[in-house]
Amino acid sequence: MSDSYVTVNFLDPVQDLLVRVEDQMQTLTSDHHPDLEVALQHLFSSGGKRIRPAVALLTGCMLGAKSEQLVKLAAAIELLHTATLVHDDLIDGASLRRGIATLNTQWSPAATVLTGDFIFARAAKMAAETDSVEVMRIFADTLAAIVNGELVQMFSSQGVAEREHYEKRIYAKTASMFELATTAAAYLSPVNDNLVNNSRLFGYQIGMAFQIVDDVLDFTGEQQTVGKPVASDLRQGLITLPVLFYLEEYPDDPDLCSIIDGKYYSDVIIDRVVTSIQMSGAIQRSLEEANRYVDRGAGYLEELPDCQERRALEELSAYIVGRNL
Amino acid sequence: MSDSYVTVNFLDPVQDLLVRVEDQMQTLTSDHHPDLEVALQHLFSSGGKRIRPAVALLTGCMLGAKSEQLVKLAAAIELLHTATLVHDDLIDGASLRRGIATLNTQWSPAATVLTGDFIFARAAKMAAETDSVEVMRIFADTLAAIVNGELVQMFSSQGVAEREHYEKRIYAKTASMFELATTAAAYLSPVNDNLVNNSRLFGYQIGMAFQIVDDVLDFTGEQQTVGKPVASDLRQGLITLPVLFYLEEYPDDPDLCSIIDGKYYSDVIIDRVVTSIQMSGAIQRSLEEANRYVDRGAGYLEELPDCQERRALEELSAYIVGRNL
Repeated sequence: MSDSYVTVNFLDPVQDLLVRVEDQMQTLTSDHHPDLEVALQHLFSSGGKRIRPAVALLTGCMLGAKSEQLVKLAAAIELLHTATLVHDDLIDGASLRRGIATLNTQWSPAATVLTGDFIFARAAKMAAETDSVEVMRIFADTLAAIVNGELVQMFSSQGVAEREHYEKRIYAKTASMFELATTAAAYLSPVNDNLVNNSRLFGYQIGMAFQIVDDVLDFTGEQQTVGKPVASDLRQGLITLPVLFYLEEYPDDPDLCSIIDGKYYSDVIIDRVVTSIQMSGAIQRSLEEANRYVDRGAGYLEELPDCQERRALEELSAYIVGRNL
Repeated sequence: MSDSYVTVNFLDPVQDLLVRVEDQMQTLTSDHHPDLEVALQHLFSSGGKRIRPAVALLTGCMLGAKSEQLVKLAAAIELLHTATLVHDDLIDGASLRRGIATLNTQWSPAATVLTGDFIFARAAKMAAETDSVEVMRIFADTLAAIVNGELVQMFSSQGVAEREHYEKRIYAKTASMFELATTAAAYLSPVNDNLVNNSRLFGYQIGMAFQIVDDVLDFTGEQQTVGKPVASDLRQGLITLPVLFYLEEYPDDPDLCSIIDGKYYSDVIIDRVVTSIQMSGAIQRSLEEANRYVDRGAGYLEELPDCQERRALEELSAYIVGRNL
């Protein structure tokens, strides 16, 4: 199944709404200082897959939300995602000083902070335009979860090889935003608490799967990220699922142990560990784990109204584990 | 009139609520990484005057808001204020490279960005707990105004000696937050649009006065800020009201013109200009301007219910122009 076929297929039911989401985001780029406009244009048109807005739109359409509020929500979610990426760039730039090039050197740190803050502010404004206190509340909760996760990662994730710690980290980093997309869309719909909860659980499961696949792609090196080396997390001492599974098989690998212990390790050692992990069964086991999350997600999805949007969400789930592999 | 007498006096009617605001903020400092807890404790207990929360509490009590929502609002406002200060430190650190020491060197830029984001997130969460869409909306608008103002300042304020530009800048920087405090408090109260609007205008006026006085204190040097040199704005090429008034008297001062033109200027030149401004009538004229703002504020205040909180707001207004002088 080709990538473009899948993409077109599951986005079909919300194609018009996605165009309106883009329009909402584009309106934010005008009437500012030329340098800021260029930066915003660049950020908003950098070819992201808009997977989070699509999840929100499909969920909301499935549950009968009004399109106007839904478009605001979807735009708010993509803006929130973009804002965290902007600050992440700065943070990575600082924490990757151990020999790896920073991502963004043209824009000063101060301008980067403010650009991120600006997009946060616009995200909050867009979320407020849904006119829903529940949406605002979960929006604020999600921002808190994401930032808290980043702080934990900065202060205490290096060398932690624990499954529970990993799961908390990818929840904060990624699954929280998918959960926000489905839950907030449900809040905007005329449905009961049970359906809201099933929507939430569906979002959680596919979000966890999404990040696990990202972490696999970080090892298989097929990720189309500019400037990111293979195993960028491991190079920062961050232990992801493929590493955890590899450790179960080879708990005494001296190269990996030296990385986890935070001792001196060279690029040669990292590259050797990466090759070992690539050749091991850890990649396949990680993908199976992602599939289990998607399967659980499908279970929750079955409790929701059967319609073309639900089928699109099923396909989207399949796309999450199948992309770039 | 001693400072402590004034302080105690106008805070009296909301003393209990201010304690609850402190409690709300303190609850945010626990259950985190020790380094973050220390940073948050430091930020929240750094002896700020809590003037913005006091304005919100007094306005809300005057207009009959419920104390629980009001405490959340006041805490949210102080958190928003604190978050912007944290990011400002980072931004100042970057933009003050022209020879002046950065403010915060212990905490890394990455940790500073995230700590600011964390406090933003908590501010948004606290604001959402007021359960008011109007409050969330104005909260998001204010954040957007503040950040937009900072971006304008970064990109295009250096050397701009225009009254209108100055007023826009201090609105974004300071008055917007006072306006938020009074308007949001009014939204939480059982009052009509007219009273909301008078509350808003009162907040605007005292906020403008507050920043003008801050800009005067930047010249008179009696501000108790650690690490900030006298005329810190002018050293960055930012033109404040005392400079504008001085320019009206001495439009051809060669020292000041070289600063405004962004040409090379030494500390000796800056110090000479500062002394000239201190000796001129510009300081007094600026204070008179601040008083005019406070007087206009008093006019709007008179349209609001007469009670002890209103009298406290009058005293608070007087305190704004009288502090540290």
